[in-house]
Amino acid sequence: MEQSRRSFLQKTALGVAAGVSMPFINNAATQSNNFFAKQGDLLPVGIAGYTFNKFDVEKSIAMMKRIGVQNLSLKEFHLPINSNEEKVKSVMAQFAAGNINVYAVGVIYMRTKQAVDDAFAYAKKVGVKLIVGVPGYDLLDYTEQKAKETDIRVAIHNHGPEDALYPGPQQVYERIKDRDSRMGLCLDIGHAQRAGTDLVKAIKEYRGRLYDLHIKDVSLAQRDGKAIEIGRGVIDFNAVVKALKKNNYKGMCSIEFEKDMSDPLPGMAESIGYFRGVMSTLS
Amino acid sequence: MEQSRRSFLQKTALGVAAGVSMPFINNAATQSNNFFAKQGDLLPVGIAGYTFNKFDVEKSIAMMKRIGVQNLSLKEFHLPINSNEEKVKSVMAQFAAGNINVYAVGVIYMRTKQAVDDAFAYAKKVGVKLIVGVPGYDLLDYTEQKAKETDIRVAIHNHGPEDALYPGPQQVYERIKDRDSRMGLCLDIGHAQRAGTDLVKAIKEYRGRLYDLHIKDVSLAQRDGKAIEIGRGVIDFNAVVKALKKNNYKGMCSIEFEKDMSDPLPGMAESIGYFRGVMSTLS
Repeated sequence: MEQSRRSFLQKTALGVAAGVSMPFINNAATQSNNFFAKQGDLLPVGIAGYTFNKFDVEKSIAMMKRIGVQNLSLKEFHLPINSNEEKVKSVMAQFAAGNINVYAVGVIYMRTKQAVDDAFAYAKKVGVKLIVGVPGYDLLDYTEQKAKETDIRVAIHNHGPEDALYPGPQQVYERIKDRDSRMGLCLDIGHAQRAGTDLVKAIKEYRGRLYDLHIKDVSLAQRDGKAIEIGRGVIDFNAVVKALKKNNYKGMCSIEFEKDMSDPLPGMAESIGYFRGVMSTLS
Repeated sequence: MEQSRRSFLQKTALGVAAGVSMPFINNAATQSNNFFAKQGDLLPVGIAGYTFNKFDVEKSIAMMKRIGVQNLSLKEFHLPINSNEEKVKSVMAQFAAGNINVYAVGVIYMRTKQAVDDAFAYAKKVGVKLIVGVPGYDLLDYTEQKAKETDIRVAIHNHGPEDALYPGPQQVYERIKDRDSRMGLCLDIGHAQRAGTDLVKAIKEYRGRLYDLHIKDVSLAQRDGKAIEIGRGVIDFNAVVKALKKNNYKGMCSIEFEKDMSDPLPGMAESIGYFRGVMSTLS
């Protein structure tokens, strides 16, 4: 019974040590301390910062500790985008002390050139190589130019049928596929499912540009589907995880929990548990 | 992606309607309202009442609702064993109003004939056909006699290496295997793992007498292993769930969470999520 777990543990430890399997994790402290990576998660998990919309940094760290997740995509309410160096230092020190690895910033909406500049400056200050963002179509050339200049990747986020720019991953992919390889997708599987996307197909087709994931479940596979604990909705997580593994996904699986936002911990915990349970059967 | 889920849903609905797959669920209201059964849990889940050691009935119901679990093995702190009829009525009405199905009572320790009588009287008053209990060796004959008289099953609970009577399921099984079929086991997989039991083998060998389960994880497969969120410990849940399914287990899978007992909700949620995630891949 313990054989496969131990064997996977060895493989994971090796992968982390060799630095091959998690290109977006640039915080060395986390690599050695992630007890779940040690225990053998099939894919690395994180939290999309929007989950903590109603909580300060301290409370957010406490919740992440409770559910054993260390990777975070940082949202602006935890660190405003135009923060000075002192403020950045102090907030990032808080995360470091909590053993939280900030692996990306976002989701950041970019409607002007200035906003693009600000986003890249923010990523640089924070010290990450990944922006999860939503640049307007007219800013894609400029965004690409900045990505090349800074070597910071941009994962464009889809936001469901009601979104005029990027309702599903297809609308992202068709606009970045011929651009520099630093331009990619953050596939939000919940919004994509509501937009009618075949998730397994999307993971396969966009695999070369899939740089981040927002993992969640939705009550219905249509526009008015609501956020719900992972496993209670319509998404087939077994198929999603299999597809990610099969297509050699190398990024983070960041849970974004948008139900009970004033008291998200139980739902986050159930969600992360379910996702890990599914992964455990495939490792 | 939805095919297997729907197909399982249909099978489950059929199984419940025909009354074949859940012999211990005697509350009709629950059968029609369990949204997880509808969604397709491979095996029915519940909570072992000890989890709520520090909480009253109202708060316990609220936690069960939050994690979407409706089946409960009732502990005495929620309803004292010698309660009069009025008290029983009032507490059971609370559970019914909360849409909670009390499917068993226990764990009940029985050290005297009177305690055995009390346990059976209690089960009858509560209206369940299953006692999870720990009768002394010298009371097994009398317990069996009462089980036959009342047609109430007794699932004897193992309690780990430090338990003088039933450290593992083997010590239960060898004392009930030649008795009336109403005498069986409540396999506590955490205590059993600490006692060195091969869980897959135990589930197979004792399948004919396996009437209840306490599902949990432990940090180590030895005496001083500690309670921990399901998925974070040493138990191979993929193997356990497969074995239960393969051996046609018909009882409840009741999560017993014994960590953070003053604030168990996040850990319970993570545990139930993980267990459901594992089950989802096998349905």
